[in-house]
Amino acid sequence: MKTLVKLSICLIFVTVVVGGASAQFAKPEDAIKYRKSVMFLIAQHFGRMGAVVKGKAAYDQQAFSRNAMVVEALSHLPWEAAMVPGTDKGDTTLNAAVFAKKAEFKAGAQAFEAGAAKLVSVSESGDLNAIKAQFGEVAKSCKGCHKQFRTK
Amino acid sequence: MKTLVKLSICLIFVTVVVGGASAQFAKPEDAIKYRKSVMFLIAQHFGRMGAVVKGKAAYDQQAFSRNAMVVEALSHLPWEAAMVPGTDKGDTTLNAAVFAKKAEFKAGAQAFEAGAAKLVSVSESGDLNAIKAQFGEVAKSCKGCHKQFRTK
Repeated sequence: MKTLVKLSICLIFVTVVVGGASAQFAKPEDAIKYRKSVMFLIAQHFGRMGAVVKGKAAYDQQAFSRNAMVVEALSHLPWEAAMVPGTDKGDTTLNAAVFAKKAEFKAGAQAFEAGAAKLVSVSESGDLNAIKAQFGEVAKSCKGCHKQFRTK
Repeated sequence: MKTLVKLSICLIFVTVVVGGASAQFAKPEDAIKYRKSVMFLIAQHFGRMGAVVKGKAAYDQQAFSRNAMVVEALSHLPWEAAMVPGTDKGDTTLNAAVFAKKAEFKAGAQAFEAGAAKLVSVSESGDLNAIKAQFGEVAKSCKGCHKQFRTK
């Protein structure tokens, strides 16, 4: 499934960038709500892993891996909703830089996707030091993208 | 990944029912926001498939399958957030019947998960009649559960 989703996502990303993402959403507000929903869910599952990494919650290999898998599955979703023109206005923190710097945005998105996928495989090893290191890498990719493409 | 997620979800469901779901969320409002986010995303992707089934959008096998895969991945997520005591109050349409009829709620959740998984495999066949039939089955499982466990 993972490979299929990735393949499909690649195809979808091309469609989105070339063909326009707005066709996927009935109205711009839906695109905003869509990406906010994805980001909230990612933050919830990333936060659960973060609590373990920070020593605030007990480490449970299966639970950690499940959180990593959910983040990985979600990591492919928000980008098409971010490409809808005009959705930097309204109830959103999206920065219009997304539209001006498509290549950088796409690179940031792909770095997050790749980092989240690696976190899944590292989490399956049960090696907590390696897990912490990779968790840190993913957190870095979040921050890097937010700095450029999210307003405060 | 699919098998692993399913396995983990089964384990998680047991933990949730036995151990209480509230530990996963910082506050009850987060559980409500979590399940609303999941349901909104499911509705978006289910709606895209629905448009094809109703003949309002062109059929594209890859795009349809991707939507089915996203719904399947999301189908496992909302249940733990629905089990948090007290979250039938507030900005939600959850019916308290969820807490009184746990076995029925779990059966409804599992029927949706199974139906969504079958929709993925049927969608890969490219047989539009079979796809429409299975889409109808999943829609039926949505409605059945909403009738019992969602207030209007």
